[in-house]
Amino acid sequence: MAKTYNFSAGPGVLPDEVITQIKQEFERNEHTHMSIIEISHRSAQFQAIVTEAEQKLRELMAIPEDYAVIFLQGGGSTQFEMIPLNFATNQSHIAILDSGNFAAKASEAAEMLGKQATVLNSTKGINYQKLPILPEHFDPELYDYLHIVTNNTIEGITFHQDNLPSTTGRLVADMSSNILAEPYDINAFDAVFAGGQKNLGPAGVTVAITKKDWLAQQDVRHVGPMMRYQNHIDKQSMYNTSPVFSIYALNLVLDWVVAQGGVTEMHRRNLEKAHKLYAFLDQSDFYTAPVETNARSLTNVVFTTGDLTRDKMIAKRAESEGLFNLNGHRSVGGFRASLYNAQSMAAVDALITFLKKVEKEQV
Amino acid sequence: MAKTYNFSAGPGVLPDEVITQIKQEFERNEHTHMSIIEISHRSAQFQAIVTEAEQKLRELMAIPEDYAVIFLQGGGSTQFEMIPLNFATNQSHIAILDSGNFAAKASEAAEMLGKQATVLNSTKGINYQKLPILPEHFDPELYDYLHIVTNNTIEGITFHQDNLPSTTGRLVADMSSNILAEPYDINAFDAVFAGGQKNLGPAGVTVAITKKDWLAQQDVRHVGPMMRYQNHIDKQSMYNTSPVFSIYALNLVLDWVVAQGGVTEMHRRNLEKAHKLYAFLDQSDFYTAPVETNARSLTNVVFTTGDLTRDKMIAKRAESEGLFNLNGHRSVGGFRASLYNAQSMAAVDALITFLKKVEKEQV
Repeated sequence: MAKTYNFSAGPGVLPDEVITQIKQEFERNEHTHMSIIEISHRSAQFQAIVTEAEQKLRELMAIPEDYAVIFLQGGGSTQFEMIPLNFATNQSHIAILDSGNFAAKASEAAEMLGKQATVLNSTKGINYQKLPILPEHFDPELYDYLHIVTNNTIEGITFHQDNLPSTTGRLVADMSSNILAEPYDINAFDAVFAGGQKNLGPAGVTVAITKKDWLAQQDVRHVGPMMRYQNHIDKQSMYNTSPVFSIYALNLVLDWVVAQGGVTEMHRRNLEKAHKLYAFLDQSDFYTAPVETNARSLTNVVFTTGDLTRDKMIAKRAESEGLFNLNGHRSVGGFRASLYNAQSMAAVDALITFLKKVEKEQV
Repeated sequence: MAKTYNFSAGPGVLPDEVITQIKQEFERNEHTHMSIIEISHRSAQFQAIVTEAEQKLRELMAIPEDYAVIFLQGGGSTQFEMIPLNFATNQSHIAILDSGNFAAKASEAAEMLGKQATVLNSTKGINYQKLPILPEHFDPELYDYLHIVTNNTIEGITFHQDNLPSTTGRLVADMSSNILAEPYDINAFDAVFAGGQKNLGPAGVTVAITKKDWLAQQDVRHVGPMMRYQNHIDKQSMYNTSPVFSIYALNLVLDWVVAQGGVTEMHRRNLEKAHKLYAFLDQSDFYTAPVETNARSLTNVVFTTGDLTRDKMIAKRAESEGLFNLNGHRSVGGFRASLYNAQSMAAVDALITFLKKVEKEQV
């Protein structure tokens, strides 16, 4: 039987080394051992994990001291609420560049909370195949911040560091699906958040990176205590019971990234993997990768044969050959091959071999 | 070396069988296997786990069909906000019986959200050694609901089913630390919530049980989408990415409870364990269990020698004999032996043997 590859968009593939470490954690040594999920979140052992994880993330992303780094529950969706509750307190008005589904969700959440959300530009009309451009007349003074999604997992489109919108105002980024996959200058942002379940580890933990002086300016009197960043910052991510397992596993993933050579090496590998797959798709007459070249995602390669029913059948057949979870998001169809940090070049090679074979049979 | 026992108040001891199953989940079979933390929360495999977990919890607690059951992130502390946001929408006024630290926290959170919170009665003045009584003149019409904490982990005091406050109004219960430990008639409550990390599994998941018709009456227009119960109910706990590992492990714990004989058997064992320990403490001249007899917790047995410095030294010494995490909560000191469902009678016996030995040396 062929080796299995997991192209899930998240939760997705994690490094084999991490999975092995987790397994060892649950070896019950009847004389001395309590597993990580049976100890207090206030124990010295777990506090050390949280401190280490924060420190490693700071080093990996070169996060300056004037940013706070915390680990929270609730996923990116809770951040769609915490961000406006904590930061849209002056104008109560936020600006959004709509480059995909998750930008729209952030906009909706802000509006439900009584904030105004203005979509400055959207490429929805062209199925998000290009990035929306920041309008020339954009006046950051009118808004508390500009919200972007660095990588839209569903559409496979990315604001890379070199095509980030250029604003003198505050910039907030949802980095859920490409944090640690490619380098960003954190100084370009005033707040960044990322759900854990792509490049950071398992689901159940979310990273929030917030600029301290900006946070200090906010009036959050009517915000619930769990929704205030400052409460979590003051308690070093232990304002209430932390999601112990998810943070423990995230810390192992960070160890792995460090050992591999950090974000520079992740980026090198991700470029190599993605370029190989895009190069194959671009030379093919059978498959199309629709996103404009300079905005293509390294983590989520989206493509199609142009016939969604056929795509589905091919993705199904791929499973029988060990290539799992290649279906595009249910809202768009087609294919999506997620190439997160833990994805190997072998997986990409196996995918290309399979796609070539199918193409030959069909044309 | 002696066997180790873990008396942590939570996250705490889990059944050996569950830990072994988790270990097996992370056995990397390179040909066919993706671990539970690497698959999509929308996969059939995970959806089946969520459905099963809900069904098992319904059976174990005899939850009628007119209650919704969901799994959320954020712990009990997030429920301190979701409960008033979703249910204190009519009077914007809630009533609280203060039987310990977590009742006070729920009150503070509600007030920060602009709700009025009235403590009807509190036993704080006597260090929560008795349960607060519902005042005779209590008029439920003035409040959206009455909030209680069935078991206060810190103080070791419990509203058991037979001493629940008797009200014709809505009753909300924080059951975080004794859910599944003793039987409750769910029909006595209109909403129940419980953080996972005591009797349900690991930290990172919270159960919410809400009466459907009550929820349908609420105006939650200005509540953020992640804070609305109905959104999570409509999506069967998959409104956004679920805390996959924590729900997976919770489901294994529920399997274990079912296999042991359900809540009836858990209760029988918990009574036996707790009564044995309380009986020892009560006959001792050295140790005191301060909580009034009919309100003593089965899950958290709180006691002291009357000298907090000595207590700390004894708890430290206990560790060297394999008895871990016996310190009382940092806010109160003394001892706390948590006897959750997965705690064995052997642990209680070992504790009593140790406490006897210390007593003999000291008196």
